[in-house]
Amino acid sequence: MEDTQSRTDERKLPIQKVGIKNIRYPLAVSNGNGNLQHTVATFDMAVELPQDQKGTHMSRFVEALNEFQESVSLSGIQRLVNVLKKKLPSPGVFLRVEFPYFLEKKAPVTGSASMMDYTIILTAESHEDDRITATLIIPVTTLCPCSKNISEYGAHNQRGLVELHVRFADPATADFDRLIRCVEETSSCEVFALLKREDEKFVTERAYENPVFVEDLVRDIALKLAKEGNVNWFKVEVTNFESIHHHDAYAMIDSDHISGFRTLEALAATVKTK
Amino acid sequence: MEDTQSRTDERKLPIQKVGIKNIRYPLAVSNGNGNLQHTVATFDMAVELPQDQKGTHMSRFVEALNEFQESVSLSGIQRLVNVLKKKLPSPGVFLRVEFPYFLEKKAPVTGSASMMDYTIILTAESHEDDRITATLIIPVTTLCPCSKNISEYGAHNQRGLVELHVRFADPATADFDRLIRCVEETSSCEVFALLKREDEKFVTERAYENPVFVEDLVRDIALKLAKEGNVNWFKVEVTNFESIHHHDAYAMIDSDHISGFRTLEALAATVKTK
Amino acid sequence: MEDTQSRTDERKLPIQKVGIKNIRYPLAVSNGNGNLQHTVATFDMAVELPQDQKGTHMSRFVEALNEFQESVSLSGIQRLVNVLKKKLPSPGVFLRVEFPYFLEKKAPVTGSASMMDYTIILTAESHEDDRITATLIIPVTTLCPCSKNISEYGAHNQRGLVELHVRFADPATADFDRLIRCVEETSSCEVFALLKREDEKFVTERAYENPVFVEDLVRDIALKLAKEGNVNWFKVEVTNFESIHHHDAYAMIDSDHISGFRTLEALAATVKTK
Amino acid sequence: MEDTQSRTDERKLPIQKVGIKNIRYPLAVSNGNGNLQHTVATFDMAVELPQDQKGTHMSRFVEALNEFQESVSLSGIQRLVNVLKKKLPSPGVFLRVEFPYFLEKKAPVTGSASMMDYTIILTAESHEDDRITATLIIPVTTLCPCSKNISEYGAHNQRGLVELHVRFADPATADFDRLIRCVEETSSCEVFALLKREDEKFVTERAYENPVFVEDLVRDIALKLAKEGNVNWFKVEVTNFESIHHHDAYAMIDSDHISGFRTLEALAATVKTK
Repeated sequence: MEDTQSRTDERKLPIQKVGIKNIRYPLAVSNGNGNLQHTVATFDMAVELPQDQKGTHMSRFVEALNEFQESVSLSGIQRLVNVLKKKLPSPGVFLRVEFPYFLEKKAPVTGSASMMDYTIILTAESHEDDRITATLIIPVTTLCPCSKNISEYGAHNQRGLVELHVRFADPATADFDRLIRCVEETSSCEVFALLKREDEKFVTERAYENPVFVEDLVRDIALKLAKEGNVNWFKVEVTNFESIHHHDAYAMIDSDHISGFRTLEALAATVKTK
Repeated sequence: MEDTQSRTDERKLPIQKVGIKNIRYPLAVSNGNGNLQHTVATFDMAVELPQDQKGTHMSRFVEALNEFQESVSLSGIQRLVNVLKKKLPSPGVFLRVEFPYFLEKKAPVTGSASMMDYTIILTAESHEDDRITATLIIPVTTLCPCSKNISEYGAHNQRGLVELHVRFADPATADFDRLIRCVEETSSCEVFALLKREDEKFVTERAYENPVFVEDLVRDIALKLAKEGNVNWFKVEVTNFESIHHHDAYAMIDSDHISGFRTLEALAATVKTK
Repeated sequence: MEDTQSRTDERKLPIQKVGIKNIRYPLAVSNGNGNLQHTVATFDMAVELPQDQKGTHMSRFVEALNEFQESVSLSGIQRLVNVLKKKLPSPGVFLRVEFPYFLEKKAPVTGSASMMDYTIILTAESHEDDRITATLIIPVTTLCPCSKNISEYGAHNQRGLVELHVRFADPATADFDRLIRCVEETSSCEVFALLKREDEKFVTERAYENPVFVEDLVRDIALKLAKEGNVNWFKVEVTNFESIHHHDAYAMIDSDHISGFRTLEALAATVKTK
Repeated sequence: MEDTQSRTDERKLPIQKVGIKNIRYPLAVSNGNGNLQHTVATFDMAVELPQDQKGTHMSRFVEALNEFQESVSLSGIQRLVNVLKKKLPSPGVFLRVEFPYFLEKKAPVTGSASMMDYTIILTAESHEDDRITATLIIPVTTLCPCSKNISEYGAHNQRGLVELHVRFADPATADFDRLIRCVEETSSCEVFALLKREDEKFVTERAYENPVFVEDLVRDIALKLAKEGNVNWFKVEVTNFESIHHHDAYAMIDSDHISGFRTLEALAATVKTK
């Protein structure tokens, strides 16, 4: 039976990415801190195709998933890249894995426990070097400083989503839970699945005491990340589902584009105690 | 060329709905108040298929759309149903049209104008009788009464979406803009695309002065609708994108299931001035 | 601290549903056949609120989730309803759980194994009686009989999604895997995550040999379900992502609306061997 | 009333993007060829925020939309960028506009006319220079060459989406309709909203005669674009909603990453007649 994909291609055009998208697979996730949990992930997997090859072998991506028996972590992703490289020899490999991630949190006053859900996306781009990025999507409360300042009482507040993209000096010791806490502590208030009345009083007052614009939140998170020794690069995005509008507010800082801050160390040195 | 769809079917099974979904078409929308605007709509169109017919003729749904040259309104929908009935003789016709709808609103203090977007869905189910339903999706601000009561300062608030489903005694005089205003006035505060600083102070304080649970909002809207003479049936749903949680709060009242209120007149009689 | 929600409400309006939506929680799923797997589910939970009560206690829904330590199945859902009834005394309880579900499948010729993903939704509506419904969303291949008949070669085919809604005489013995197989066998061809070249030849030819309109597929599935002794009610929907259009084709049969078929037994008696 | 946003910020961190997202506004669209149509667009608008400024003035983005009275085109976008620059002085401006776009198409045999919908996204990034990119999302039919080669009869085919990202030498003469036709002619077959039986025979046979992998389609489109004198840069992505899988196939070529092709002229010179 002819292998159509293996024919020689005369068009002299390499393809930067070819593969499969949106395939769901059950898997376990482990964090640097030893936390192991079952989840369901959605994978995109692709390779670079040299100019003289007509097509890739799509089924081998699924075989690679089948053979990958370990839990997903930043190190695990690295090993899945290696499985892909062996099955689909190519100058470049691309991988994206998205999954829900849970932490048990205790309500601030009553201590009532509940599971809080986040979304994590791990991407690996492997050419001569490998570049692995973790994206954490973290819901928070934000309360508007302007609204608080100008109003006799109250202040508009809303759910916001922080998207934190990070690359680590040492992926093996990356700690997602620590990054999540860093973002939550920086917002007007963290959110919880379960709050009793005493807790609701606490989070309402805490948010009122800690107003932040989207601009403040990306800056404050950037300053905290600059002090994380294991973080080589970050981009932080905040989207507020404004309670007073039908549209959203948005801000973004990319550590590569901070003029005047040549190194993250220099950035960290400027951090003031708030 | 054989017409496969017209073959006789031996399975003795009528099909309740068969047709096309998710077809986008540009069109104009008119309201009972004469407001005419250009928009883009997404249509679902279906018929009932008798048990002895193998298939419907899908292309005729698109031909019906082509022939329908007028603007979409509750009366227009009725005429599109009639076009479908002529092209696809059937005991039942089903139609769903969803489109964005805009109103110019003025900010409460500065009077700054901007366009506010809503979503409208019109559905028609035609068997012996026709039943036409309008759904209006209206964003609002809601502020939590419990959070306000128990906290020293502040109160959590958030964007909410009200879904109002209505059937009219006289569709020709239905006024979407009036229903939208009814919902907006009942919420903690209406939302705007454009607010200057003076307006932001106004909406912040107004929301603080008018706290509503999702339960309050569906009840208050129900009471107002009960006084609308042209409303035969309604269902009102509210979803709050809670600022203190990653999940949503939800409430729903269906006028058909209000025990003890046999008629909407009786319901209206109980309305108190708030 | 005042319990605002427990105040008496004077508006005399019961609320049919009030609760929380879109809360994600990790859980295990078990099938009637003993299959147990870890997954992540999204819950909607609501109760009916009597007319004299101002609000429900939203946190109790999350507490119910926390206390529910067993795997989700049709029986498990029943027990979660009971937990809710105890925590939130109410004339009515509503529950919806959606989660991905996986089966290992072997490719038809090479026998290569891979995980196939489905979506399952379980809903429970509990008033005086409980009514539990399972919805299975199953991807399939469909090939157009008309296109095959009129063309010299080829036939358009596409991915379709079957949504099967079922209520069981005895939920404890419901077998999701059997229903999934029933739908897959009835389509032009089932789909797989992993197909080698020999398998691709098989599925291509099998689909060409088994053309079905959306109308055929809902009818053939209806006839098969009518023979399932444990099925009390069903609705089957098929959506084809037509390869020759940008819109979709759709058909639906609801066992309650089959005129001339008073009982499912009568329906089953008419089934012919295809 | 204090202008909180105008306070001086001490954190020494510029923000790369801050603004609003997901605001819907009705507008007219014009193409280089004079085609003018009404549509509804969704805007994202942002500016760069210097390090010494606490916040941006979100309401000015909406004011800019209000003041922008002309139709959206590549030149129109440029003028909206200029309005933003005047209202929100900043080293950088970012704009994204997404809208449905329609062309009337005639079925290939019967000539039956219908409206075909596409999605267009225009983005502008303005720092010292302006960079405007048009993205066209175009549905097509793709038929698998491997499936055709190895099977006795039939071949799996499916709906695919081509995402074409283009930057022009002269935006004023950019012709979206010409680019759409270029993609449609290159696929196995273009798709239509309305096909009669004779047309369905035509598109079925045409697709069977023109099998393409996702790899073929991105290469063939790349070769055609290389001959478009007005195209300075392109990226072409194809996603196939595989009829034999529940996941998608994907390929991408970026003209910046074609090693061995230093200029698009060189690329164009290699194009062979297919």
